[in-house]
Amino acid sequence: MHVDLNSDVGESYGRWTLGDDDAVLRVVTSANVACGFHAGDPSVLRATCRSAVQQAVVIGAQVGYGDLAGFGRRFVDVAPADLEADVIYQIGGLDAIARTVGGRVRYVKPHGALYHATVDHAGQAEAVVRAVATLDRGLPVLGPPGSMLLEAARAAGLRTVAEAFADRGYRSDGRLVPRGEPGAVLSDPETVARRAVRMVTEGRVEAVDGSDVDVAAGSLCLHGDTPDAVGLATAVAGALTGAGVELRAFG
Amino acid sequence: MHVDLNSDVGESYGRWTLGDDDAVLRVVTSANVACGFHAGDPSVLRATCRSAVQQAVVIGAQVGYGDLAGFGRRFVDVAPADLEADVIYQIGGLDAIARTVGGRVRYVKPHGALYHATVDHAGQAEAVVRAVATLDRGLPVLGPPGSMLLEAARAAGLRTVAEAFADRGYRSDGRLVPRGEPGAVLSDPETVARRAVRMVTEGRVEAVDGSDVDVAAGSLCLHGDTPDAVGLATAVAGALTGAGVELRAFG
Amino acid sequence: MHVDLNSDVGESYGRWTLGDDDAVLRVVTSANVACGFHAGDPSVLRATCRSAVQQAVVIGAQVGYGDLAGFGRRFVDVAPADLEADVIYQIGGLDAIARTVGGRVRYVKPHGALYHATVDHAGQAEAVVRAVATLDRGLPVLGPPGSMLLEAARAAGLRTVAEAFADRGYRSDGRLVPRGEPGAVLSDPETVARRAVRMVTEGRVEAVDGSDVDVAAGSLCLHGDTPDAVGLATAVAGALTGAGVELRAFG
Amino acid sequence: MHVDLNSDVGESYGRWTLGDDDAVLRVVTSANVACGFHAGDPSVLRATCRSAVQQAVVIGAQVGYGDLAGFGRRFVDVAPADLEADVIYQIGGLDAIARTVGGRVRYVKPHGALYHATVDHAGQAEAVVRAVATLDRGLPVLGPPGSMLLEAARAAGLRTVAEAFADRGYRSDGRLVPRGEPGAVLSDPETVARRAVRMVTEGRVEAVDGSDVDVAAGSLCLHGDTPDAVGLATAVAGALTGAGVELRAFG
Repeated sequence: MHVDLNSDVGESYGRWTLGDDDAVLRVVTSANVACGFHAGDPSVLRATCRSAVQQAVVIGAQVGYGDLAGFGRRFVDVAPADLEADVIYQIGGLDAIARTVGGRVRYVKPHGALYHATVDHAGQAEAVVRAVATLDRGLPVLGPPGSMLLEAARAAGLRTVAEAFADRGYRSDGRLVPRGEPGAVLSDPETVARRAVRMVTEGRVEAVDGSDVDVAAGSLCLHGDTPDAVGLATAVAGALTGAGVELRAFG
Repeated sequence: MHVDLNSDVGESYGRWTLGDDDAVLRVVTSANVACGFHAGDPSVLRATCRSAVQQAVVIGAQVGYGDLAGFGRRFVDVAPADLEADVIYQIGGLDAIARTVGGRVRYVKPHGALYHATVDHAGQAEAVVRAVATLDRGLPVLGPPGSMLLEAARAAGLRTVAEAFADRGYRSDGRLVPRGEPGAVLSDPETVARRAVRMVTEGRVEAVDGSDVDVAAGSLCLHGDTPDAVGLATAVAGALTGAGVELRAFG
Repeated sequence: MHVDLNSDVGESYGRWTLGDDDAVLRVVTSANVACGFHAGDPSVLRATCRSAVQQAVVIGAQVGYGDLAGFGRRFVDVAPADLEADVIYQIGGLDAIARTVGGRVRYVKPHGALYHATVDHAGQAEAVVRAVATLDRGLPVLGPPGSMLLEAARAAGLRTVAEAFADRGYRSDGRLVPRGEPGAVLSDPETVARRAVRMVTEGRVEAVDGSDVDVAAGSLCLHGDTPDAVGLATAVAGALTGAGVELRAFG
Repeated sequence: MHVDLNSDVGESYGRWTLGDDDAVLRVVTSANVACGFHAGDPSVLRATCRSAVQQAVVIGAQVGYGDLAGFGRRFVDVAPADLEADVIYQIGGLDAIARTVGGRVRYVKPHGALYHATVDHAGQAEAVVRAVATLDRGLPVLGPPGSMLLEAARAAGLRTVAEAFADRGYRSDGRLVPRGEPGAVLSDPETVARRAVRMVTEGRVEAVDGSDVDVAAGSLCLHGDTPDAVGLATAVAGALTGAGVELRAFG
């Protein structure tokens, strides 16, 4: 049994630092590296890719809206053709950076509001898929289970990986409890770690209403920019390996 | 006998258009395509690369400072390591765009104030060269003759191409007359075309003081964003082919 | 009888020019000057305000989303508190510029996608109103008739001005025909001018289905960035004054 | 005897936080608030001004180059007329924000590379002064002693305030030891506090070569974004009041 652990990194910008990328990269198997549009200037990306290569962590392109002030967390109604070009450009920029330090971009994951938009915004979901399919059909797409993004990617013949969240509450229909609602975010490391193990070994998680729901956990997403992010990630990784689950990148 | 004609294209941005790229691409053999830092959003770059591929024009990465408000024409004292990463990122972003429409980036040319800085700013000149050498040693560097840029590129084992300007005045030491001084810019198409032919066939040009100076014209640069740019470019191209000079990209 | 004519100006940016502001300013009575977020760098704003003052045209702040690449024409889901601060900042920046050339900001009008959002997006409409009310209760708000923007502005005790579009088609319910649909945009100067006169003198316009609809025309909006914008504006202004309507700013 | 203590605040941006502004504002008498060009989005500026007003700290406009990626710390060769407009716009944007929370901009101080440029770059120094003089002749200019900035401001009839640095080494000619050289930065709180007291009470400081130099300390600058910034500031403030020096804003 094995699973991938992914987390966002490379989200510092110029004078501003965010997250403890080096610590995160010691735990995860896949690094969603920002691409300069929502965060991450080229120097940040290069240092991040260098660390990822040193830690043998697989590099993915975390593409987002071109909205630094909003950190890519505000929906922007970008026309699909423009979004497609934006995504191609971001993957190419990061891949060039990665190649100069011995790495490559091995998968693509949308960030923030774009991630959420691709759940049910057909135009933007298909634009991301077209960008990947046109640029490099060998790149898998990492995203939310049940999303238009993964559906369109499968239809385009791309490999898809659905991710699960051990530290987020699930509804009985398999969707996440929206942030702001009770039970949306879990912070107790032991609870989160136990859920992670069950997600991987049983493919199930307990929903907020107490029922059990199926979860496809091709990759577990660990948050990188919360105060105790590294502690939580370490607890999850430790519990998984303790349960005999191998941590292995999908990319 | 043959020569390359290069011009800047892809410098529109969002709602703002600049230059008549389609007309320019019907004349030149090499297109210096902006890379999104000083001009050119990804959709503009994609349309520009598509046109270039259709016209069989070679695509080059016109890398610049990340200064939209200044259009890359203001010197920015970017630290060499940051500039190196910026250049790698720009080349990679444009190359990805180009690949999705059947092209590739085939050379690199700095834009605007970065172009001028690389004449004698060792740190920035070497940063541009390191970026190219680290990313792809097969990419030639196009730039000003006698510059630190071309010197550093040669030292790094890169192919270099020096460019000449048929519509700019030369001093007797072979340098350009600075803009704003008398004789800096020539606009009469016939004069410019005659100078172009002599630059290529004799390797010489008449300086502002009436003396003759040597000019290495691996490529002739044609300006693309002046009102009569296309007319001037067409006159130059016509005069060259009329004189038996083949127009052929170096890249 | 009198009416205000407003148009967008100051939308150039750095090397990129857009519209013929000087010609537009010779026709209109109110200038919606961009504020640097969707277009208009500070030097452009200053030159525009200087021209407006010289032509005795009233200056308004055309506030927009901070999205240069999208020219403010893409909806951005900015949180109301952030939007409120963005609008205050934009008005203040433009007003400072205006004061140095003998003018002042005399009204506020949202631009592009923000304009459209304030029709029925309560959070953003109220954010714009709060910004104006908190900064200067003497500033009128110019916007779409029947919008949440004008409703919230009235509720906050601000003066409101509803605008009408002589060159846009109306539906029988008084709303504009969406761009892209048949009859959305009219370009014949004579037709547009005749509609303008009727809007002001009768308060009515013929809808696309042939019916007559009421139109509150506190100000007529003339588009400034289309090829024949100045010709159309001149035709409208001429027809209005010919019909005995005085062109007079509301601000 | 009295002195002003100033520090940079409001330099967070969107998702990225920098410095402990609330703690800094409990110590200083003057707050150099970023204006959105090098740092500080409008929401950050508003929260910062609100805190400053609550702590009765005077607000100043910390104007900088429009270079987020470089945090305003890289020289940008902005043309004086453009810089003048940029500075006017920044002051106006911040002042509008300040007014909505009960404050006003009471002085102007250049940031980072612009601060350093105004020491001996006549064009940029005069541009900053023209901006202030044209917008509001009542605004004092805070800057480096012996600079072209303060000289031009005096010549323009503006009030000037020279600042001193208790935590920086001085050369025997009264200039600062450049960063990177031995003795450039002092970090021992007791030493820094003792120097601060002597600067204010005697108008002198010991240079790196052991000699004594005159220091005009109209305001003492405390750095806000170093790890121990608040501790150092508190030590300086405590030593000054302990020595009978009143902490009082100049603005």
